[in-house]
Amino acid sequence: MPADDTQNSAAGSATAMRSDLCGHLNSDDVGRCVTVCGWVDRRREHSEHLAFVDLRDHSGVLQCVVDGARDLRAEYVVAITGTLRLRPEGTANPALPTGDVELQDCDVELLSRAEPPPFPLDERTEVDETLRLRHRYVDLRKPRMQRNLRSRAAVNRAIRRAMDAQGFVEVETPMLIASTPEGARDFVVPSRKEPGAFYALPQSPQIFKQLTMVGGVDRYYQIARCLRDEDLRADRQFEFSQLDVEASFVQRDDVLGFVTTAVAEATAEVTGHDPETFDRITWLDAMERFGSDKPDTRFGMELVELTPIFADTKARVFQAPCVKGICLSGGAESLPRSRIDELVAMCQRWGAKGLAWMRVATADPASDSSNEDAAASGASGLILEAGVAKFLSSAEAAAVISALDAKVGDMVFLVADERRLVRHVLGLLRLELGRPPVNDGSFNYLWVLDFPLFEGLNAQGEPIPSHHPFTMPHEDDLPMLMPPDGPLSGEDLLQIRSQAYDLVLNGWELGSGSVRIHRRDVQQRIFEVLGIAADEAQKRFGFLLDAFRYGAPPHAGFAVGLDRLTALLVGEENIREVIAFPKTQSGADPLTDAPSPIAETHLQELGLRVLPPA
Amino acid sequence: MPADDTQNSAAGSATAMRSDLCGHLNSDDVGRCVTVCGWVDRRREHSEHLAFVDLRDHSGVLQCVVDGARDLRAEYVVAITGTLRLRPEGTANPALPTGDVELQDCDVELLSRAEPPPFPLDERTEVDETLRLRHRYVDLRKPRMQRNLRSRAAVNRAIRRAMDAQGFVEVETPMLIASTPEGARDFVVPSRKEPGAFYALPQSPQIFKQLTMVGGVDRYYQIARCLRDEDLRADRQFEFSQLDVEASFVQRDDVLGFVTTAVAEATAEVTGHDPETFDRITWLDAMERFGSDKPDTRFGMELVELTPIFADTKARVFQAPCVKGICLSGGAESLPRSRIDELVAMCQRWGAKGLAWMRVATADPASDSSNEDAAASGASGLILEAGVAKFLSSAEAAAVISALDAKVGDMVFLVADERRLVRHVLGLLRLELGRPPVNDGSFNYLWVLDFPLFEGLNAQGEPIPSHHPFTMPHEDDLPMLMPPDGPLSGEDLLQIRSQAYDLVLNGWELGSGSVRIHRRDVQQRIFEVLGIAADEAQKRFGFLLDAFRYGAPPHAGFAVGLDRLTALLVGEENIREVIAFPKTQSGADPLTDAPSPIAETHLQELGLRVLPPA
Repeated sequence: MPADDTQNSAAGSATAMRSDLCGHLNSDDVGRCVTVCGWVDRRREHSEHLAFVDLRDHSGVLQCVVDGARDLRAEYVVAITGTLRLRPEGTANPALPTGDVELQDCDVELLSRAEPPPFPLDERTEVDETLRLRHRYVDLRKPRMQRNLRSRAAVNRAIRRAMDAQGFVEVETPMLIASTPEGARDFVVPSRKEPGAFYALPQSPQIFKQLTMVGGVDRYYQIARCLRDEDLRADRQFEFSQLDVEASFVQRDDVLGFVTTAVAEATAEVTGHDPETFDRITWLDAMERFGSDKPDTRFGMELVELTPIFADTKARVFQAPCVKGICLSGGAESLPRSRIDELVAMCQRWGAKGLAWMRVATADPASDSSNEDAAASGASGLILEAGVAKFLSSAEAAAVISALDAKVGDMVFLVADERRLVRHVLGLLRLELGRPPVNDGSFNYLWVLDFPLFEGLNAQGEPIPSHHPFTMPHEDDLPMLMPPDGPLSGEDLLQIRSQAYDLVLNGWELGSGSVRIHRRDVQQRIFEVLGIAADEAQKRFGFLLDAFRYGAPPHAGFAVGLDRLTALLVGEENIREVIAFPKTQSGADPLTDAPSPIAETHLQELGLRVLPPA
Repeated sequence: MPADDTQNSAAGSATAMRSDLCGHLNSDDVGRCVTVCGWVDRRREHSEHLAFVDLRDHSGVLQCVVDGARDLRAEYVVAITGTLRLRPEGTANPALPTGDVELQDCDVELLSRAEPPPFPLDERTEVDETLRLRHRYVDLRKPRMQRNLRSRAAVNRAIRRAMDAQGFVEVETPMLIASTPEGARDFVVPSRKEPGAFYALPQSPQIFKQLTMVGGVDRYYQIARCLRDEDLRADRQFEFSQLDVEASFVQRDDVLGFVTTAVAEATAEVTGHDPETFDRITWLDAMERFGSDKPDTRFGMELVELTPIFADTKARVFQAPCVKGICLSGGAESLPRSRIDELVAMCQRWGAKGLAWMRVATADPASDSSNEDAAASGASGLILEAGVAKFLSSAEAAAVISALDAKVGDMVFLVADERRLVRHVLGLLRLELGRPPVNDGSFNYLWVLDFPLFEGLNAQGEPIPSHHPFTMPHEDDLPMLMPPDGPLSGEDLLQIRSQAYDLVLNGWELGSGSVRIHRRDVQQRIFEVLGIAADEAQKRFGFLLDAFRYGAPPHAGFAVGLDRLTALLVGEENIREVIAFPKTQSGADPLTDAPSPIAETHLQELGLRVLPPA
C-alpha cells in the first residue's frame, strides 16, 4: 500500500474532526472522552446554566449536557467534545438506542449557524411536497429519508454483487444516442456542432445491450439511468434507474435465475430476510385467476370460473360468454349498502354493465321458503340472498356457493360479460376489496410467463406487439406464426405466445424481459405480420438489423425498475421518497428552479429559436 | 432462497445451451463431452473432410476438429458439442492457453450466419476509426476490447467496494438539472411541459453532492455520468464517468486517504499489484521541479534552479529574473544537430525567446584551452562546449555542471526568462525529451497540494479563481485574504494558497477536489474579491447559498475521471479504447447516426424552430 508520505505537504492538519458517530455510542463507551459532530436536534433547558442538547448525525441522536448553550438553536452545526457517562438513574430513555448515556462536561465548537428550518424535522408533521422539495437538503436530514437513501444504496450494492458473482460485466452505454420512433417520447438534446440535429436521451439501453451481445460481451449488466418525456403520475418520474441485463447463449429460465438471485439478494440486504416466494405463473393463468398480469398474491380472493354453471341459465344477467366471481369473506356483515353501491358504480366505470352481488346465509327451515330475495339452498345448507339472488335457480346458487367455497356471512360478486372485460373488472374489484397496504405483509415475487406476442389488433386489423418487435415467439407456437400454408387470421395471431416475461412484486410490475429473435426468418415474419415493410424496418431498426447480419448469438434479457423495488422494500407508497432529488409531478425542481430559460447566445449556437407561446 | 417453482410454467426448457467457456478448457478436462458456443474465429482445412475450426468466445479460443465444415465461415455463430482430447504429439500450441487440447467428434449447430466482417479481427491490422465505430459490435469482439471493457468494470467494482467499506453512501443525483453559467458549456434539454424552458445535463454533480452534505448524508459517492458540450480532442468525449466523492466533518487529509484507498484498489484489481507510489508534492514544488502541475514522476530530469549562478552574469542571454536548466543524460551523443534545432523551435513556440544548450565534455589539457566554443572547466574536470558555452565564465560553467550533476556526454538545456515562462517551457521540454510511452513502467500516483486560490488576474485586475468559488483558502493564508486593514493588491492575492488538490498519474491529471467553504464570512470575502456582487452571487449560486443558510457542515470532496484512469491502467493512449460506444472526434456516432433531425411535430411540442443554416 502507498506510504502516507507527507514530506512535501504543507500544513498536515491530520487531527480527525470527530472521534465517534452519535448513534453508535452506548454504555460500553462510558468514561471515554469523545468528539461528535452534527446538527442540534433539540435543546431543552435543564437548569439556569445547563441545557440538554440532542445532537443528530445520520447514525442517530446523542444527549449532551451543555453549559451555557443559550446560543445553540435547532439545526446549528456543532462539534461537541465531552465525557460519556451513564444517565442518572430514572432518566434513561429506552426508546433511544443511546438512551442509557449522555455526554457531560461538554466543549461546544460552533461550526455553522442555521436559520430556523422551513418545516419541522419530525416524522409526524405533514409538509407540503413542494416545500419539502424546495428545501430537500433539510428534508434529507429526517431519519426516514436517511434510511431510504441508505436502503437504496444497499439495493444497488447487493444487485451489483449478485450480477458480478454470476459473471456479468458492467458496461456503461451512452447517454447521448439516436432518437428512435419507438415507445414513449424521447427527451432530445440539440447538437451545437450540427445545428438542427438532436441527440436523444435513452429510454433504456435496449439497442446497446443487444449490440454488446453481438459484440461478444456474453453477459452484460448495468444500473442504467433512463429518461422518458411522459406526463408524470404519482409513481412516475422523468428519470428512473433500472437494472439492465442481457446474456448470450442462454434460455428464458437462465435469465429468470439471474434476476431472481439479484433481486433476492437486494431484498435480503434491505429487509434482513429472504423473500417469501418467487412463484411462476403463466400470463393466461394470471389473467384468469387474478384478472391482472401483475397479480398481488399477498391475499387470495381469486377469480373463480362460473361460466359452465350459467351455460343454460334463465337469468338474463348471466347470459354472457363468460361469468366469473369472487368471494369476500365476512362481506355480508362488513359491507354497508352504501359501499356496495359504490362498488357497483366503480365496476361500471371500469367497463362492466353491472356487478351482481349476493349475501351468503344459512337456509332457515323455519322461515318462509318463498322469500323472494333468496335462491334455494344447496346441500351445504347455505343460500344466496339479496342482490340478484332471486334470479338464480337453486342449482345455480348451490353451484356458485360451492365453486366459490363461500361461507355463511360472505359476500359474493359476479360479473358476466366478454371474457377480457370480466377478468379486468373483477381483477380491479379484487384489489379494491382485498389489497393490503404497501408496507403490509410479505414480499411475494411472481414471475409471469408466456405473455401473448400481440396485445390486440389495430384499426387496420394488424396486430399490435405486446413488447418490442424483437421478442421471440414461444417455441411451441412458432408453427402457428409461420404456417407453411399461408397467412393467419388476426384472432389466431392473438393466441400466439411469446418468450416475454414480467417480474411482479405484491401487485407491482417491477420489470420485464424476453428472449430476443436472432433468426432472420422469424424476424422477417414478425415484420411482415406487423405490416412493417423492409425499407421501413431498415429505417426504424436499421443499425440493429445491420448488426445482426454480422453474427448474432441467441440472447435474452431483462430490466428491473429500482426506484419501485426500493420503495416497496422500505414500505414507501411514492417513489419520490427513495429518490434524493426528485422532480414534482409537473416535472419541475423547486430547489434549483429547473427547467428555466437559457441565454439567447446559447440558443443561437444551437441554431434554435423559441416560438412565442401558442 | 426462492424455490425454482415451475409448476405454472409452460415449456420449461431448462437444458443449458453450453457446458463450458472456450478459454477455460485445458488438459484437466480431457475426456469430457462439452458444448461450447461462440464465433468461428478461423477455419483451416485439415484433410478432405476434416477442418480445424477455432471457436472464439470472450474467454478465449478452442480448436475443434469438425467433419464437413465447408459451410462454416468466419464470424458464424455456432454451438459445438464434442469430446475434449489432448492434441496429437507435436501439434500443441504453447502460445494458446487451450493449446494442449482440442475438441473431436464434433456436432455443430449453426445458430447464426454472418456476412464477412467489415475488417479483420486481428490486432495487427490498423482499421479506420470511423469504420471501427460504425461496426463497433464487431470491433468489440477483439480480445483487446474485451479485456478493456472487463478492466473498466473491474475499476468500477473495486472503487465501489472501497467506498462502501469506508462508509460512503451511493446517492444517484439527477440528470435533468438547472443550467448554470459556470464552467464549460451545458448540454440542454428542452422542456415540453414548459416550452421555451430547458433542463441542463450535469457537467458534474458538484452542487448536488454539496447539497447532500447539507442534507446530513455525511459521506457521499457516486460513479457519475457527466456531460460537457466542449469541442472534442483526442482524449475527450462529450460524456465521461467520474468517481464523485464528498464527506462532512473531514479535513483534506481524510479525503486524500479515501481516494487513495479507492484508486489503489482499482489499480491492484486491474494490474494485479499495488501502485508504486502515492507521493505528495505542493503545487509550488511541482512547478519549480517539474514545470507542471501534473508531473510525470516516472522519470527524473528535474528542473534545476540556476538563477543565483547567473546573478551577476555578463552573458546577456542569462540576464533574466529566472534561469533553470535540465540535463539530458547522454544527450551530447544522442541528439543530432537537426533535433536540437527542432527543440529550439519548439521552445520558441511555447513562448521562450530561445533555448540555450551545451554539451558536457572532458577538459582535455592537451587541447587548445582557448577553444572558443568551450567554457572553462571546473574542479570536476568537465567543461561545457558548443551552443552558448562560449558566453559562460568558467565559474558559471562549473556551477551549472555541478548544480545539474552533469556527466561527460550529457547535454544541458537552459532557459532564462520570467519564472512562469521558464517553468512552463522547461516542463514541456522535459516531457519531450524524457517521457516514456503510456504503457511503460510503473504507476506513479502523485497528490499535488496547495494549489493557488487564484490562477491569475483578468483584464479588470480581478483575480480568476483556479477552482470553483467555494474552494476554501489555505488555513495559514486566511489572514492574507481577510486582513483587518483593508484590501490586498492583485499580486498579493495570487500568493494565497487554497485547500485544493489534484491527483496525478504518470503526468495525467486524474482528478481534483477541495475543502469547501462553509463559513459565510469567508464566502462573502471570496465573492467580494472576485467582484461578484451579492445579487449576482444569489443569481448564480442562489440555491447552494440558500442551503448553506440552513446549517452547512464543514465538508470536502473530490472527483476522479474513470475513463482516463482505466485507459492508463490498461495501457491505452486513447480513452475511446475503454468506452463501449464512444463518439468520434466530431461528436457523432457512426453506428446509430446520432445526432439526427427530429420530427417537426416533436419540435412543435417543444415550442422550438430550427433556424436555417447561417
